Amino acid sequence: MKLQLAVDRVSIEKAIGIIREAESYIDIIEIGTSLIKDFGLESVRRIRREFPEKAILADIKTVDEAEYEFEAIYQAGADIATVLGASSLETIRICQQVAQKYQKDYMIDLLETSAEKQLELKQFSDGILCVHLPSDKSTGLQALIESTLAQIDDFPRLAVAGGIKPENIAEIKKANFEIAIVGGGITKSADIRETAKIFKSLVG
Amino acid sequence: MKLQLAVDRVSIEKAIGIIREAESYIDIIEIGTSLIKDFGLESVRRIRREFPEKAILADIKTVDEAEYEFEAIYQAGADIATVLGASSLETIRICQQVAQKYQKDYMIDLLETSAEKQLELKQFSDGILCVHLPSDKSTGLQALIESTLAQIDDFPRLAVAGGIKPENIAEIKKANFEIAIVGGGITKSADIRETAKIFKSLVG
Repeated sequence: MKLQLAVDRVSIEKAIGIIREAESYIDIIEIGTSLIKDFGLESVRRIRREFPEKAILADIKTVDEAEYEFEAIYQAGADIATVLGASSLETIRICQQVAQKYQKDYMIDLLETSAEKQLELKQFSDGILCVHLPSDKSTGLQALIESTLAQIDDFPRLAVAGGIKPENIAEIKKANFEIAIVGGGITKSADIRETAKIFKSLVG
Repeated sequence: MKLQLAVDRVSIEKAIGIIREAESYIDIIEIGTSLIKDFGLESVRRIRREFPEKAILADIKTVDEAEYEFEAIYQAGADIATVLGASSLETIRICQQVAQKYQKDYMIDLLETSAEKQLELKQFSDGILCVHLPSDKSTGLQALIESTLAQIDDFPRLAVAGGIKPENIAEIKKANFEIAIVGGGITKSADIRETAKIFKSLVG
């Protein structure tokens, strides 16, 4: 699996420092939703400039106004942008079209989507579906993975986020995830570099 | 009804200019989602400074990390913050608690919520429920209002957004909306001041 490091709730400067420490062990930098809402597109532009060669996911969580938001985020330097699976299919289709226009990737966040909606989302077969335990809920990742994969486990590109720890990675690796997303588990550790190294060795 | 003016897809300076023109005829300034995602909390702080006496809604559309986002947005100067009704009930409950702590309002955006979820959301009786036609869908406001009010028409505080025009305000006024939200219908008009005046006279 690829390791995606989600960074937010800090200044842009601090975010850059965190990413710098973990850089060698991560495959994708995630500019977290709160970083975008705190600092706007400047967060994406600044981190793009600092890490010109690294894949960047901007967790913009579009739910409407898809053309405007996706155009802006790709132009700011994102390689992957996110849209909520809870959005209308019209909105997600626009995200897909803008991603195709920019030859970039898009990720559909399954946060709080119903089983019916998850089945409908399989039509977006060039996207990445992300099984996501909200941080406002603290437990239940494994149950969420199982109930979601019952609908989508044959989808080509899958990611997983929320509550991934060294202790549960072996279980997560049994499923067909392309990307494991880790945030505070790395960014809040005492030794970011060493913790990122451990996570990379576990997911790899 | 109160008239709420939604402003986005422009610079902060341009947004301030638009609000200045419409100021006399609007009750609530809405800092639109895209303005927050483009410029971050600075958009809220700047507009708060320019309009210290006016009610400000920040359309932050929280869907997770509710405590962090709601604390930040109220501290930046918002009087009302938004959370997606599609969020988990845990997330919305945290928004409610932060709103109570700051003695501010919160609005639950019903964008793409199911009838079942709308019924569940009635427990948040100190919030404002917003019937919202996505801008990525261009028609169907009246049908959306009817199908939504079948669940929530006895809810104390209701707002409506998406596709409100001078031609359909009479129909909208038949329902018990406290707030009518208008964006491009005013901000893209050739004479913003005059158009805001017309909308205010129609909703009033």
